[in-house]
Amino acid sequence: MGVFELIAIGNELLIGKTLNTNIHWISGEITRLGGFVRRATVVRDELGEISVAVGEAMQRKSDWIITTGGLGPTFDDMTLEGVAIALKRKLVLDRKALEYLKISYERAKKQGLVKSYELTEARRKMIMLPDHSKALPNSVGTAPGVLTKERNCTIVCLPGVPAEMKAIMKESVLPEISKAIGPNYFCEGTLLVSKVIESILAPFIKGAMKNNPKAYIKSHPKGIIDGASRIELSITTTAPSKKAAEKIVNDALDEMQKAVLKLGGFVLKREID
Amino acid sequence: MGVFELIAIGNELLIGKTLNTNIHWISGEITRLGGFVRRATVVRDELGEISVAVGEAMQRKSDWIITTGGLGPTFDDMTLEGVAIALKRKLVLDRKALEYLKISYERAKKQGLVKSYELTEARRKMIMLPDHSKALPNSVGTAPGVLTKERNCTIVCLPGVPAEMKAIMKESVLPEISKAIGPNYFCEGTLLVSKVIESILAPFIKGAMKNNPKAYIKSHPKGIIDGASRIELSITTTAPSKKAAEKIVNDALDEMQKAVLKLGGFVLKREID
Repeated sequence: MGVFELIAIGNELLIGKTLNTNIHWISGEITRLGGFVRRATVVRDELGEISVAVGEAMQRKSDWIITTGGLGPTFDDMTLEGVAIALKRKLVLDRKALEYLKISYERAKKQGLVKSYELTEARRKMIMLPDHSKALPNSVGTAPGVLTKERNCTIVCLPGVPAEMKAIMKESVLPEISKAIGPNYFCEGTLLVSKVIESILAPFIKGAMKNNPKAYIKSHPKGIIDGASRIELSITTTAPSKKAAEKIVNDALDEMQKAVLKLGGFVLKREID
Repeated sequence: MGVFELIAIGNELLIGKTLNTNIHWISGEITRLGGFVRRATVVRDELGEISVAVGEAMQRKSDWIITTGGLGPTFDDMTLEGVAIALKRKLVLDRKALEYLKISYERAKKQGLVKSYELTEARRKMIMLPDHSKALPNSVGTAPGVLTKERNCTIVCLPGVPAEMKAIMKESVLPEISKAIGPNYFCEGTLLVSKVIESILAPFIKGAMKNNPKAYIKSHPKGIIDGASRIELSITTTAPSKKAAEKIVNDALDEMQKAVLKLGGFVLKREID
């Protein structure tokens, strides 16, 4: 119901050109809705790589697979072809996608970006969807998003341009995800501590996890500031209600705070979000 | 010889907490040395996930696998255990790693961060390496890096803290990679153009790729600025000499520049790096 895999497609992500902010943003949105992102994969603009990555995610029985990138008009935009291969489906001209494409070019024409919008080969590619898919309108750019189901998995394909990806997520995908997951709340509490080092804290984290089995406690070293090592302790949980989630996090925060003070450390900040 | 896979380990990367700058930085460094990063995978701090991801990368016959994260002293730092499972090796206390750990804690003691440094269970974990591995000194933090070979694959494990990861890469790993790849030069040229849209450019990119088979041409839409759509054309190649690489990129830049002007577009910037 709520296990996700993300697949980001684009050479630019694997040559150090573009920082992958899409996976970061999508992970955050899904987590906040109570979903669980199990894995993210980044592959190149190669048909085999894309179809294999989608096929592998299907085999791991994820409930959702969300891809970003490779939906545009150029030769190396091949996400839909890759997904079609993975799902053993044909690519068909989608009438709804055509409608959305026309709306996009009509908008571009009004903005003076194009003079006309014949359905060239390059543009036609953007509306050839795996059979039995649903096109999702793109209110920012031209390539429509795609949503399709295969067995118990929902596959969503989004553009790589962050503004377009976010628009389609917010307008069409997050509401669907929220509905599928149901009431589920993610909560994170943080404790910024100093004057204790990670290897000293380690057994106390283990102990607090044992006493608070629904909380996940993770330490993030933040370097040495004013001659003291600084660590952020992040405590997270997902629960059916906001109140329950906050209680779990607060209890674990209490225990870790006590441990830090007992070890002679300082608590610089305690927050719950 | 030069095909890489990167595996980033850490829940924080899959809940939208931490932006994965490590993959971006490592990809850039490897690409500049003429290496090819085929895939990057992000998994959670779970033993099964880590060992499976490493095993899959081994099966794809990558020459190098570089992991980041999960080398520290806490319960959920389990990269070395995951790698050991994937390689079917035992974890053994590594004497060189112990030496590096002592140096780290000696440094921490001098900095006033710790009073003493007994080899606690948590600390011991950081120096239990898969059998037949080489420990790599960590000049910034405490957990040593690890390098090991399995058949034709070199596996490198690095900490997730960016400063520590970068230090070990620069001091111990990049020189090895450079030696393994040999003389190979990556070159990128960019053309920032306006007043043409991507779907119009698409067939010309395809044509230029055909005429310049060693160049890879990719378009990145950069939004609408001053009422005109702006696109960055990125042209990349890898060649045995700097001169050869630059010629390939320059020829493709020439062809794309001509196409843009012919289409009534503007070239705002042309750069080669």
